[in-house]
Amino acid sequence: MSGNTFGKLFNVTTFGESHGLALGCIVDGCPPGLELSEEDLQQDLDRRKPGTSRYTTQRREADQVRILSGVFEGKTTGTPIGLTIENTDQRSKDYSNIKDTFRPAHADYSYMHKYGTRDYRGGGRSSARETAMRVAAGGIAKKYLKERLGVEIKGYLSQLGPITIDKVDWDEVGNNPFFCPDVDKVAEMEDYMKALNKEGNSVGAKIVVVAKNVPPGLGEPIFDRLDAELAHALMSINAVKGIEIGAGFDSVAQKGTEHRDEITPEGFLSNHAGGILGGISTGQEIVASIALKPTSSLHLPGRSVDIHGNSIEVSTRGRHDPCVGIRATPIAEAMMALVIMDHFLRNRGQNADVEPITPVIPASPAS
Amino acid sequence: MSGNTFGKLFNVTTFGESHGLALGCIVDGCPPGLELSEEDLQQDLDRRKPGTSRYTTQRREADQVRILSGVFEGKTTGTPIGLTIENTDQRSKDYSNIKDTFRPAHADYSYMHKYGTRDYRGGGRSSARETAMRVAAGGIAKKYLKERLGVEIKGYLSQLGPITIDKVDWDEVGNNPFFCPDVDKVAEMEDYMKALNKEGNSVGAKIVVVAKNVPPGLGEPIFDRLDAELAHALMSINAVKGIEIGAGFDSVAQKGTEHRDEITPEGFLSNHAGGILGGISTGQEIVASIALKPTSSLHLPGRSVDIHGNSIEVSTRGRHDPCVGIRATPIAEAMMALVIMDHFLRNRGQNADVEPITPVIPASPAS
Amino acid sequence: MSGNTFGKLFNVTTFGESHGLALGCIVDGCPPGLELSEEDLQQDLDRRKPGTSRYTTQRREADQVRILSGVFEGKTTGTPIGLTIENTDQRSKDYSNIKDTFRPAHADYSYMHKYGTRDYRGGGRSSARETAMRVAAGGIAKKYLKERLGVEIKGYLSQLGPITIDKVDWDEVGNNPFFCPDVDKVAEMEDYMKALNKEGNSVGAKIVVVAKNVPPGLGEPIFDRLDAELAHALMSINAVKGIEIGAGFDSVAQKGTEHRDEITPEGFLSNHAGGILGGISTGQEIVASIALKPTSSLHLPGRSVDIHGNSIEVSTRGRHDPCVGIRATPIAEAMMALVIMDHFLRNRGQNADVEPITPVIPASPAS
Amino acid sequence: MSGNTFGKLFNVTTFGESHGLALGCIVDGCPPGLELSEEDLQQDLDRRKPGTSRYTTQRREADQVRILSGVFEGKTTGTPIGLTIENTDQRSKDYSNIKDTFRPAHADYSYMHKYGTRDYRGGGRSSARETAMRVAAGGIAKKYLKERLGVEIKGYLSQLGPITIDKVDWDEVGNNPFFCPDVDKVAEMEDYMKALNKEGNSVGAKIVVVAKNVPPGLGEPIFDRLDAELAHALMSINAVKGIEIGAGFDSVAQKGTEHRDEITPEGFLSNHAGGILGGISTGQEIVASIALKPTSSLHLPGRSVDIHGNSIEVSTRGRHDPCVGIRATPIAEAMMALVIMDHFLRNRGQNADVEPITPVIPASPAS
Repeated sequence: MSGNTFGKLFNVTTFGESHGLALGCIVDGCPPGLELSEEDLQQDLDRRKPGTSRYTTQRREADQVRILSGVFEGKTTGTPIGLTIENTDQRSKDYSNIKDTFRPAHADYSYMHKYGTRDYRGGGRSSARETAMRVAAGGIAKKYLKERLGVEIKGYLSQLGPITIDKVDWDEVGNNPFFCPDVDKVAEMEDYMKALNKEGNSVGAKIVVVAKNVPPGLGEPIFDRLDAELAHALMSINAVKGIEIGAGFDSVAQKGTEHRDEITPEGFLSNHAGGILGGISTGQEIVASIALKPTSSLHLPGRSVDIHGNSIEVSTRGRHDPCVGIRATPIAEAMMALVIMDHFLRNRGQNADVEPITPVIPASPAS
Repeated sequence: MSGNTFGKLFNVTTFGESHGLALGCIVDGCPPGLELSEEDLQQDLDRRKPGTSRYTTQRREADQVRILSGVFEGKTTGTPIGLTIENTDQRSKDYSNIKDTFRPAHADYSYMHKYGTRDYRGGGRSSARETAMRVAAGGIAKKYLKERLGVEIKGYLSQLGPITIDKVDWDEVGNNPFFCPDVDKVAEMEDYMKALNKEGNSVGAKIVVVAKNVPPGLGEPIFDRLDAELAHALMSINAVKGIEIGAGFDSVAQKGTEHRDEITPEGFLSNHAGGILGGISTGQEIVASIALKPTSSLHLPGRSVDIHGNSIEVSTRGRHDPCVGIRATPIAEAMMALVIMDHFLRNRGQNADVEPITPVIPASPAS
Repeated sequence: MSGNTFGKLFNVTTFGESHGLALGCIVDGCPPGLELSEEDLQQDLDRRKPGTSRYTTQRREADQVRILSGVFEGKTTGTPIGLTIENTDQRSKDYSNIKDTFRPAHADYSYMHKYGTRDYRGGGRSSARETAMRVAAGGIAKKYLKERLGVEIKGYLSQLGPITIDKVDWDEVGNNPFFCPDVDKVAEMEDYMKALNKEGNSVGAKIVVVAKNVPPGLGEPIFDRLDAELAHALMSINAVKGIEIGAGFDSVAQKGTEHRDEITPEGFLSNHAGGILGGISTGQEIVASIALKPTSSLHLPGRSVDIHGNSIEVSTRGRHDPCVGIRATPIAEAMMALVIMDHFLRNRGQNADVEPITPVIPASPAS
Repeated sequence: MSGNTFGKLFNVTTFGESHGLALGCIVDGCPPGLELSEEDLQQDLDRRKPGTSRYTTQRREADQVRILSGVFEGKTTGTPIGLTIENTDQRSKDYSNIKDTFRPAHADYSYMHKYGTRDYRGGGRSSARETAMRVAAGGIAKKYLKERLGVEIKGYLSQLGPITIDKVDWDEVGNNPFFCPDVDKVAEMEDYMKALNKEGNSVGAKIVVVAKNVPPGLGEPIFDRLDAELAHALMSINAVKGIEIGAGFDSVAQKGTEHRDEITPEGFLSNHAGGILGGISTGQEIVASIALKPTSSLHLPGRSVDIHGNSIEVSTRGRHDPCVGIRATPIAEAMMALVIMDHFLRNRGQNADVEPITPVIPASPAS
């Protein structure tokens, strides 16, 4: 597989560049019989889309998804679901000045070495714009998991640069542009972002994603453990530099008596494991954290070289997010949904839901 | 793929339980022409093998690898390489008492839910014993990468429970049983482990792995980025709960001006990226850190339930490592080698090395 | 992988139903630097498209392909190429009468058992309409193979129902609506098809596909042999019931002295092998034949059952091809191109063409 | 995947050369709970093994299989099953004379071009000896399919060189060394083979394989159709040059009214489809035929070239089968079993059989 497909039984293959005609993806392996409309997918796309607050890029994209196949009379048929989103607000000339430069912390230099060429407009394929299709595809997985298994997948921002949260109020997450679950930190975050914008700088963030009601038994030892595939999925999101499952790096200094989640007939007494043991879900909440680096596009100049090897100074004038982590919550939810969906199908098959149909025709009249 | 295969073009498929007859693996896709002997693989197997110090499990296994195929007249032929290691020191009766229990923090409960059954002897397939085959397979990748590309992959222990290191002296790593690169911390670690053993407890650890001289251009956006596949590979190691690439979780509080690795014609000025931008190698050192949880097998009793749902108390009497992180360094090196090798082949093909042979026979005499 | 993707390194994933909004595909893994335009792909699409003669379905589709991504300034970038073709001439009401019937020899019954539902309009996903995307994707492979390796892939119709050909004149293939290479049989075929249309019946056909100048050494033993993957690819075309490589079924009655292709320094003396030995190309012409069954949609009534199990009589009123084999030549060429392309990349890598770029930035100023 | 793995959810990966230390394979994805012993697999291995009659190679191999993992207390656990067979009767010096020659119709020339090297002893990896592991792996699939679904997979020889059969008596197949179902043709076949041996020549054969009681609904459109994967699987068997499903090449001259299998409530009225429509099983018998070319190793000299390009004459002195088709029946059965098993799991999942276990521990005491 050439890199743009995720999953074994629930496959998502995406295409599209930041400033191309359209983004698209094919979701292959969705069980038949799921009610599905474009509105179902639009909800999360709107949570991710740019231009919704002053703290994200000012590029205006409707991010209106179209379902081109795989749904008949309002339900999935089991055949591949084709999705597209047209790009409408490209301003490619903003980027012509970077044609010959390798911007620090961007993928310019590494793409050139891999491909010998690159679509430099807005980062081309390396732009986080491609994550729109992940959110659309993840929306299908989320809907299936919720309706058939009661699984709920939700995330929040747990740290914005230096600002950490003190509490998790799930109801608050949707009430502010940061996906912050602590209402008492929102004003601080607003002030921080304003100062940052003024400075022309960017900052990192930390996101937590949680899946509730995942049935025990999902995950494929040895290499396709649920946690290994979650790490894969989450690390594939632009700007992610770290992943934790459950206690994560806190495990290093823990003793065994502290880390192990004791079990009683009434329930697990803690969840340092983050809902996964031996690479297989336990039925506890699956909890993952991710670290996102600061946006690489800055108004503040930095040293670099051009494609001829000359020393240059680079600063970005195009529109961009000052903190890519802010819009990452729905993306991380989508990736977790894709992983869980895929593992559910690996256990139970694409068509396990299908009721045996009648009539069954005998092989031959005599038999 | 059913979970026990890693890689797309350099495929490693493993089998074997802790107390079965043998462990084995098939390495498929190794380019032809590589000189390879059992001794080449034994070196890293000996670094990982149990019973070499008082700080690891006292199980005695020679871990002697056999090459059953794929090598002819001392060189690889391009056909699959079959490897086996026999298990010799199983004491399965040590484990019969856990047949009906779900040990906390072990895979007992999750395996039962997935498979409806489990080989309870020594953890069966969920035992870290399977990692021996990863080290053997990784040894092939390491040798190829070193000989053909000059790539060197090395790791060290950067934290043992509460004890952190102050310096990295690569020459010191092989001189102590902890893979510790800071000679001044070795005595402290010895004392800590003695106290831990006495207490009957276990502890976590942190490992750093570094690959030098990796050519720029390796990695397959979007989903098969080099960092995403590294995260997958490293998280698939038993007991790993966290992964960082480059600056990792420190990125969260960094500003863009601090994080971005500026470039001069003389070289990159820093390496917060950990050698990967846009999911593709840059030519800088690839740096990954992993967090390993404390060993789950403890002499200290913990609460749990049996398979009938009754409340019980569990303590482990079998032999085990008090800190699984200690032996994890060669395993992490092996997994990093497998990822880089696979991506090298995806870029350049399995047979890119093969010199065109003569004679070339025309399609037909007339043509 | 969920069934709608073909290839390991050169991946084609398709979507789309006969009467949906659009067909589409994603071609992932195309090497960068290939000149590519929509016109390049349109040529073969026009050879396959319906409504071009009285011997094919009268559905009128422009089959105009759009390239949505992966091409920048006229050349491929190495990122996924998104393609779509809109459906314009669906007459879905033609098919409402078959909603509750299982037509003999169609996929109605088997789809219902697999999915529990089906898009009955024009056969939905089981319609040969999806092959348009194979032809588009195959066009990319064909162009690469021709420009970089000089490979030419061409096919012809070697039998139409009872009418066999006596000679192969490649120049004639494009001059008649049957892809017939024997000008002396065209009139006979025309008469046969007129009579068949009048009768309301359909008939089978046989197609031969040939690839010239394929370099020796392509194919991956054991399971991914070049001939095995060709068989897979060709059998996946709608209506195909048989595959032959080289001498095919004639091999059964051959003796070893007759079948073996003797070799001289001046060239191979025969080609019963069809250009493949041990699953690997030899440099001779790769020759495959396929048998296509008669179209299943007939005006002549046949016995069947409805979805309630009642005995019914079925005849088709919608537009359809009286001989699906007639339009199969470009499809078979496309599938052969996809297989050869994929195996070329498995040998040589996606980016083997990429010239090393400058500058190469050192890992750090000191190093 | 690098060529030596077959299947998506029921994966078989093999290794081993004709004259290496051992053959082996890993079967990954077998559902847990299947009773399995070495004796279960030995039965088909004995049907395939060499030296059992004067009509096959005189190499003597016990072909004794060992199960190294994945079975606990007599039942599969869901973890990978490692299998090995030691080679005992290699006479490698028989082959030293062919080190520098390209034998006509063998894989010598194509392997050299692919790998730049080859293990020339007995054909190395290209020898049909590797099919022993397919038979072992297929035995697991056969047992599962029979016990859980009542599927029976059986084959017979339908043509030996010029000798065709007139009837199919399944009970007769096991009574003669040819797998011939027509007792009246056995003597003729014996005489033919004696004459052939005397002549030093070889001949082709045709095999039919049938699967009964396959449930409707197996197969994954578009590219992973059941017939496409059967074609892949069967064409991957050494010496196979042609594949037919159902009516196969007879479809070419059939009219639609003749080919279509009409349906009545009492059953299908014919089976030209060979049990597959739209790439999905219908519940009818799945019927495939394969053509095998004559053995390439002959005592009669043939023209060839050596590795220096000089014209030479080649004749084979080593032991070999005069008709490779004779032993192909259990191999073809095995490959069909692997395909059906894989598709069953893709529909229903690896663990669909697993009964929900108790206890289910709540996520936490409070929840």
